[in-house]
Amino acid sequence: MTSRDGYTWTPSAGLKPGVPSLGVITPKSNLTSTRVEYDVVVIGAGYCGLTAARNCALEGLNVLLLEARDRIGGRSWSSNIGGYPFEMGGTWVHWGQSNTWREIMRYGLQGEVESSFDFEKGVKHFELNTSEGSVTMSHDDEDALLDSALKKFTNVDGVYGRKMIPLPHTTFHNPESVPLDAMSAADRIAQISSKLSPQERAVLEASVLLCSGGTLETTSFHEFMHWWAMCGYTYQGWLDMLITWKFKAGQSNFARQFFEEALATKRLSYAFDTPIQHIASTPSGVTINAKNGQTYRALRAICTIPLNVLSSITFSPPLSPGKQAAIATGHVNQTIKVHAEISNKDLRSWTGITYPHNELYYAIGDGTTPAGNTHIVCFGGQNKHMDPEADISRTKSAVQTLFTPDHYADQTVDIQRLVFHNWSKDEYAKGAWFFAPPGLLSTHLDDMRERSGNVVFAGSDWALGWRSFIDGAIEEGQRAGVEVRREVQGVKGARASL
Amino acid sequence: MTSRDGYTWTPSAGLKPGVPSLGVITPKSNLTSTRVEYDVVVIGAGYCGLTAARNCALEGLNVLLLEARDRIGGRSWSSNIGGYPFEMGGTWVHWGQSNTWREIMRYGLQGEVESSFDFEKGVKHFELNTSEGSVTMSHDDEDALLDSALKKFTNVDGVYGRKMIPLPHTTFHNPESVPLDAMSAADRIAQISSKLSPQERAVLEASVLLCSGGTLETTSFHEFMHWWAMCGYTYQGWLDMLITWKFKAGQSNFARQFFEEALATKRLSYAFDTPIQHIASTPSGVTINAKNGQTYRALRAICTIPLNVLSSITFSPPLSPGKQAAIATGHVNQTIKVHAEISNKDLRSWTGITYPHNELYYAIGDGTTPAGNTHIVCFGGQNKHMDPEADISRTKSAVQTLFTPDHYADQTVDIQRLVFHNWSKDEYAKGAWFFAPPGLLSTHLDDMRERSGNVVFAGSDWALGWRSFIDGAIEEGQRAGVEVRREVQGVKGARASL
Repeated sequence: MTSRDGYTWTPSAGLKPGVPSLGVITPKSNLTSTRVEYDVVVIGAGYCGLTAARNCALEGLNVLLLEARDRIGGRSWSSNIGGYPFEMGGTWVHWGQSNTWREIMRYGLQGEVESSFDFEKGVKHFELNTSEGSVTMSHDDEDALLDSALKKFTNVDGVYGRKMIPLPHTTFHNPESVPLDAMSAADRIAQISSKLSPQERAVLEASVLLCSGGTLETTSFHEFMHWWAMCGYTYQGWLDMLITWKFKAGQSNFARQFFEEALATKRLSYAFDTPIQHIASTPSGVTINAKNGQTYRALRAICTIPLNVLSSITFSPPLSPGKQAAIATGHVNQTIKVHAEISNKDLRSWTGITYPHNELYYAIGDGTTPAGNTHIVCFGGQNKHMDPEADISRTKSAVQTLFTPDHYADQTVDIQRLVFHNWSKDEYAKGAWFFAPPGLLSTHLDDMRERSGNVVFAGSDWALGWRSFIDGAIEEGQRAGVEVRREVQGVKGARASL
Repeated sequence: MTSRDGYTWTPSAGLKPGVPSLGVITPKSNLTSTRVEYDVVVIGAGYCGLTAARNCALEGLNVLLLEARDRIGGRSWSSNIGGYPFEMGGTWVHWGQSNTWREIMRYGLQGEVESSFDFEKGVKHFELNTSEGSVTMSHDDEDALLDSALKKFTNVDGVYGRKMIPLPHTTFHNPESVPLDAMSAADRIAQISSKLSPQERAVLEASVLLCSGGTLETTSFHEFMHWWAMCGYTYQGWLDMLITWKFKAGQSNFARQFFEEALATKRLSYAFDTPIQHIASTPSGVTINAKNGQTYRALRAICTIPLNVLSSITFSPPLSPGKQAAIATGHVNQTIKVHAEISNKDLRSWTGITYPHNELYYAIGDGTTPAGNTHIVCFGGQNKHMDPEADISRTKSAVQTLFTPDHYADQTVDIQRLVFHNWSKDEYAKGAWFFAPPGLLSTHLDDMRERSGNVVFAGSDWALGWRSFIDGAIEEGQRAGVEVRREVQGVKGARASL
């Protein structure tokens, strides 16, 4: 099935909206008109909603899952183009990500992952293009450069953040770390700039922006340090946990395991293509109005709508001032992710940073397609933002600019296919994964997590551990599922004893 | 409540069997005579059995939990001596342990952990006593020494095991690693002995035995490498994940969360003090005979009895030859763990290795007791085995031998209390956490994991990830719970449609 989401471009077919994916669900609804009230309505079928819906259904609740899109997975989904999974959003997983890995083990997929990197043959180099010029170096030298730069950036306490953020699941466990949330990445770079070589500074800035998708000024230094702590306070951990292991069969195959297990309980009702307009918490439960005019009632709602989208929904009663302030601030991640299929096989072992003059600043060889071509995944963001579908020649040029011809002799970079999802223009995402601007988390993390009457808010954007990651979505889906299941069983137990 | 398990010794009261613990469950059974058949009987109330029982009960099954002891937690439980949690068995947790940490988040305990280490004040040194003499050094020097020794030990592929064990949850993912399971730790040390300084060799051997609890000859080198891989292939990861973070309120408080959540479903029946004699898989389910003469029937059984104890149970039909062979081999861990409460407050920042001449070879300052004394936790094993309760003067002497008087002037090591559990003499454990001898896992891991008719075997001893850890127990409890729940719902669905 083909989702409405995403775009493909090929030389022969040109630009086409829609990408085939295992994540598209048919039929698009299994609702019958008989049920008038559910135990819980889960809004959003990303990993958070899928986890909450599955757990609640397994634990005996009648669940209604509503999703605006035609597919599951939210900000993580994969193509199925000739069987090949280009990852349109969230991609990489690791056993250090507790919630994700536990689900991977649940579905027996622990052997079904592979490394994005393959440095066995081909160019086997890292290409760095900066305002100073263009160089290539070995991947060992790339690692040494990044390790050195990241150590300087993160060493706020003599032990690379271990004292400042000793327990990363309680973000501000050490109150001395709070001032780091008033700082931006630009502020931190200003502190250490005299110690950074030009190459270190370029790769550091590109690496920070690869995490935040914002600008250096809009990136909270504390939130970067939180990621760093989650990765074990090392560059190697950062590589291992953020950008190494991915599913051979793609994210959408993983997400389907949750959906199908929930469906097998026969307690899951669902409707796709059902965006929400209004959520009301009432004394007896919740009332949900969809944009299509339908009304749904339940004892509780779990709302997994991303932070940047919450302003498009009305709530009754109005949300708390703190939550409204967090929504008004929003997160800053406007990552651009473009997959390019390139006929040059030698580029499988290529990685590169081109910064700050290109729309795409960070890219790696990510796989070999069924046609035997090299798959390069490229990242950009707010720094020099573009809408990849707006001008394909500009997008192709941004890919080609990653490769300075001097290093490749007569081998031109021949783009056979582009695949991408414009998360910035996606009305149900309004950005990529959550990344905090300075000040947001130290003032409003609790507000974002707070429930509103019978509506529980859950989502990776305000998870405690791997906030912004699939793992944080599952963390939050579990939390909300347990909370709501206990309450619903309490309500029903009280009714039964009347 | 006081468990039958464990021992305490104080100068005034002498040696006493039994230790107060939050893990003791009263009343010891909630069985009524009305029910004749359960959906599932879970044998063993360690973390594996607790997870399986809780999940099955939450997901609608009628569960019977049987436990030989008077308490939950199996090989992980904590004292409640004046409110202080001496950890009698499994202790440390980390967010890199996916199953454990997910449960910690479920129960909101992520802020309720603390570091065993506190190097702020006092002696702030590492003491190394070997056949070469006695020295002290800073903790930074201790770390450098261990880092160097472990790097030499683990660097089998130029990248510290990353190529050999790239995906630790599929233990033998790289078939080139299989020969490492034919090697013992002694074999590996023989390979690198010319590169090890005497100090490196002493701390390496003590550290390997701290993991295995066997001898160097009975310790599988592959299994050590598997631990190393799970820890991120670094000494720092090894420290962080194995021996740093523990519960402020103790393991038994954590285990109670599982039990109480299961009990709240009203679908959990349980009986403690109920050791099992015989387990029969029948065409329609299972029949369990307890040693007290009671018989229990269920559609399925989840047997979480440790590998070393399975030979004390009879099975009908007999277990497979492969499983029988694994049981006959058994695991090798005979760790001795002794807690000592010592009046010298300066030792809070002390760590030490005394090897190979002492029964206790590895110890650290682990806390400060309510009386303000220093709590030292000390480890020994098969290397120079003792039963700590057999001769208290020998046990005290082994603690005192960790401290060479030269380093402490006139401050004698004044033992105010000893607390321990003799896992080797415990008929329901017959050893501490699982550790594989050479050859066991490469020949019998699949056999250990295999079910036998309607009996599913689950336990940390044959987990895939953090095998031997609390995390592996929860991993296995989840796996068995999902498997059994699906089958039971299938059986009942089929019956309902007759």
